[in-house]
Amino acid sequence: MLIIGEKINTVRKKIALAVEKKDVEAIQKEAINQVKAGVDVLDVNVGNPLKEAKNMRWAVKVIQEVVNIPLCIDSPNPETIKAAFQVCRDKKRTWANSITLEKKRIEGVLPLVKEYNCPLIALCMDDKGIPPTARERLEVARRLIEVVSDFGIPLDNLYIDCLVEPISVGQGKAQQSLATIRMMKKTFPQIKTVVCLSAVSFGLPGRRLINRTFLPLLIEVGVDAIFLDPLDETLMAILKAANALLDKDESCLDYIRAYREGRLKI
Amino acid sequence: MLIIGEKINTVRKKIALAVEKKDVEAIQKEAINQVKAGVDVLDVNVGNPLKEAKNMRWAVKVIQEVVNIPLCIDSPNPETIKAAFQVCRDKKRTWANSITLEKKRIEGVLPLVKEYNCPLIALCMDDKGIPPTARERLEVARRLIEVVSDFGIPLDNLYIDCLVEPISVGQGKAQQSLATIRMMKKTFPQIKTVVCLSAVSFGLPGRRLINRTFLPLLIEVGVDAIFLDPLDETLMAILKAANALLDKDESCLDYIRAYREGRLKI
Repeated sequence: MLIIGEKINTVRKKIALAVEKKDVEAIQKEAINQVKAGVDVLDVNVGNPLKEAKNMRWAVKVIQEVVNIPLCIDSPNPETIKAAFQVCRDKKRTWANSITLEKKRIEGVLPLVKEYNCPLIALCMDDKGIPPTARERLEVARRLIEVVSDFGIPLDNLYIDCLVEPISVGQGKAQQSLATIRMMKKTFPQIKTVVCLSAVSFGLPGRRLINRTFLPLLIEVGVDAIFLDPLDETLMAILKAANALLDKDESCLDYIRAYREGRLKI
Repeated sequence: MLIIGEKINTVRKKIALAVEKKDVEAIQKEAINQVKAGVDVLDVNVGNPLKEAKNMRWAVKVIQEVVNIPLCIDSPNPETIKAAFQVCRDKKRTWANSITLEKKRIEGVLPLVKEYNCPLIALCMDDKGIPPTARERLEVARRLIEVVSDFGIPLDNLYIDCLVEPISVGQGKAQQSLATIRMMKKTFPQIKTVVCLSAVSFGLPGRRLINRTFLPLLIEVGVDAIFLDPLDETLMAILKAANALLDKDESCLDYIRAYREGRLKI
């Protein structure tokens, strides 16, 4: 399972300020710390639609100066994604995040994904928003897969975001996310799944506790990539324990090594 | 889901010493602390087959002086269970723990369970030991259910221990436990399931981390009762978060209350 570091996102005040002030050091530090914590991919979301393309280009450039892992260009705006890819060093490994079934996003992003043969995240939603049931999400996924496939993009580059919703908004939301991932993997075994962990705890106090408790459940259903906060050391320790429990760590060797090196916060 | 406090067990040196020395205060403190931490049932295991019946009677008596929740009389020896029931205040609420398919245990314990109409734990094993696959465990469970039912004991008093094994002894052990519980609940919906959480981490360092990570997975598959350490505050916080995530806590009210009262260790 891939870990996508979520911390370079202007929903965080600190990042919004750093992007606004073009604070190179602040952004680079966020990138370096996440890479040190063990992420596989770094999400980059600069918000502010007015200067988004410009800000994204700047952020990609300064992040690339200090880390060498794939970036995930996170924007609802195809122009921003295109702008970022212009300056990305390794376009084949850069993620385009994201499309939905919205025509403008499909037409804007798919040509680029096809050209660079890079990973693509498709949110499991249509013009009407997020489908309420797992079954309806599967139907949207089927249409997304068709569009992507018809465009000549290899399906093993496609990550469907199964859309974790906050448990605070209604009963059954976490279980619905788990059910969606399970059904998605069973129905479309060639497609990968991705979720944003922290969405589950929105609106509740003690969010980290909820996130940490949800993580083993997501790993158990076999999600392929997770957006999370890699600087939450307890969360990362739980990740290692979950991998040991769920046979994603042969003979628990990685877990034992991390324990011995004092890297598990218990 | 019921929480069974596991701490009064002579596998712990401290408890073995307290039982040996008949240290009333030490045993009562262990009982009181677990009840304060929120357990539903208190397991009592005094080990030492030579003086087991006598020690068990003593332990039950002193524990009953200070707490008022059901006790779970934990012994492979029917004579010890009978001895404990003689001094138990509320026999109908006292748990008999345990039988297997072994004839001596069945013949020793079932008459008592029938007489008092009390909860019974049956370990999912036969003379050959623990069956290696979920399917074989189901077969043993079927035979246990038959024996208990034929004896005229109502099946809603029966808890099948699905036997969590350490992940350190081989691949797939945790997933096998989860699969066994899932299959058990699907095949015998009238039967309850129980497991011992900490068994999963035996032989590994950082056992609490493994236990905490396994707990949400057990709650997700719907286990009905868990032996655990209620004094691990982080574990108890994860239990509350898991209940909130998995719709066992309406509108997350219990979780939010615990958070506000500072009872969640995050």
